[in-house]
Amino acid sequence: MINTEKRIREPRITLLGAGPGDPELITLKGIKALSTADVVLYDALVNEELLTYAPEGAVKVYVGKRSGDHTYSQDVVNKLMIDYALNYGHVVRLKGGDPFVFGRGFEELDFAASYSIPTQVIPGISSSIGVPGLQNIPVTHRGLSESFWVVTGTTASGKVSKDLYEAAHSKATVVVLMGIHKLAEIVEIFKQEGKNKLPVAVIQSGSTDNEKVAIGVVDTIVEVVQESKITSPALMVFGDVVSLHPKFQPIREFYETIAAE
Amino acid sequence: MINTEKRIREPRITLLGAGPGDPELITLKGIKALSTADVVLYDALVNEELLTYAPEGAVKVYVGKRSGDHTYSQDVVNKLMIDYALNYGHVVRLKGGDPFVFGRGFEELDFAASYSIPTQVIPGISSSIGVPGLQNIPVTHRGLSESFWVVTGTTASGKVSKDLYEAAHSKATVVVLMGIHKLAEIVEIFKQEGKNKLPVAVIQSGSTDNEKVAIGVVDTIVEVVQESKITSPALMVFGDVVSLHPKFQPIREFYETIAAE
Repeated sequence: MINTEKRIREPRITLLGAGPGDPELITLKGIKALSTADVVLYDALVNEELLTYAPEGAVKVYVGKRSGDHTYSQDVVNKLMIDYALNYGHVVRLKGGDPFVFGRGFEELDFAASYSIPTQVIPGISSSIGVPGLQNIPVTHRGLSESFWVVTGTTASGKVSKDLYEAAHSKATVVVLMGIHKLAEIVEIFKQEGKNKLPVAVIQSGSTDNEKVAIGVVDTIVEVVQESKITSPALMVFGDVVSLHPKFQPIREFYETIAAE
Repeated sequence: MINTEKRIREPRITLLGAGPGDPELITLKGIKALSTADVVLYDALVNEELLTYAPEGAVKVYVGKRSGDHTYSQDVVNKLMIDYALNYGHVVRLKGGDPFVFGRGFEELDFAASYSIPTQVIPGISSSIGVPGLQNIPVTHRGLSESFWVVTGTTASGKVSKDLYEAAHSKATVVVLMGIHKLAEIVEIFKQEGKNKLPVAVIQSGSTDNEKVAIGVVDTIVEVVQESKITSPALMVFGDVVSLHPKFQPIREFYETIAAE
């Protein structure tokens, strides 16, 4: 550790969005925050390459919760964050995507505030917009979509969000995060709205070397995802904007051929 | 210009999101793209400090369209982009926020593709998530919101999007971009849903030195915005998550006092 004696270590917490996975998709402000970190607490979906921006002597603690592996509860993360801030100084709480998109970021801010520890928020690229974008799928596009609706596939209760039933009914582009293990159930909701031919994309590990994409329609996407061996983490995009993806062209032609017969 | 003779200038286009305004909210990947730009075409809401990342000899052209000032039509921007790519090499098309959130980014990609010019997309922090976040307003929060819906206040026809009527009916956090001049009309839509007491935030120039915020409820927000002298560019957030903002506390107490009387 360098300059430890010189520094007065005021406790403070920076809630920082790491972006969707590609370490170059962090912001300049985020890199600057990491460079002054005494402690980095990071989640499962954070690219560990980002830790190299923190000082060599900084404490780096993995507090990830992968589904089914509840090593660190939210309570434990909250308490760790406070303990580290009080004892070490600047804690960077590094979260995948943006900290406020299903990241429970506000709960952590709130907990810090109850200890009167100053906090700062630095947004990150949310997968909900950035990951489709990197596949050249725009969440909005004139003539196809005037809005987009981002829903979680896994609510606190473990059930599909009721909002998804309304979303399936709407004309919005619907982006579902953290729902790949419920794909069949979610697809049924769109079928009940008669949207069997609505274009769908499922993207695994967007922006990383492990990126995989499956393109289909509501009726076929479960099969396409199985064939593509897509697993978590993955997001889904339901909407006509998916028809702009090059892989959709043969699907369109297939349905046009059927319709013409 | 340095090294002009050495370089082979292959035409290519990078569609780059500049983020919400704070120049430090651009990504590292974005800075790298700018540093290899031969030409930068940038929009009205882009912070011009970002241009310093481009080489000194790069051509920098403002192609902004502020509402009511249609100096550059989309057609002209498309053609400029192609001309510059063919004659100068790497064109960085720098757009405010994320290029695919009401940015007409796909139209530009598509136009480039029709000339067989290679393109790359680099997402940016969308104001829709990042600007509320910087005000510590989370677009999602357990117990308050399981989803968020981002709608434009200004469609191609100039009317309020029909999606906004559905959004006002839903339980999603509703974020409206580019609609401040239609605030009164938009507020009426929420009133018709009986949401007179729904918390609302209006944020002007989020993430910049000119940032202003107005906090109220559907019934009061028009007046609060007038008092705060908030003007374009500004976004609105409708939803219970706005109640987490410190400025909402006196509003809550006011309504609780009335209810108790």
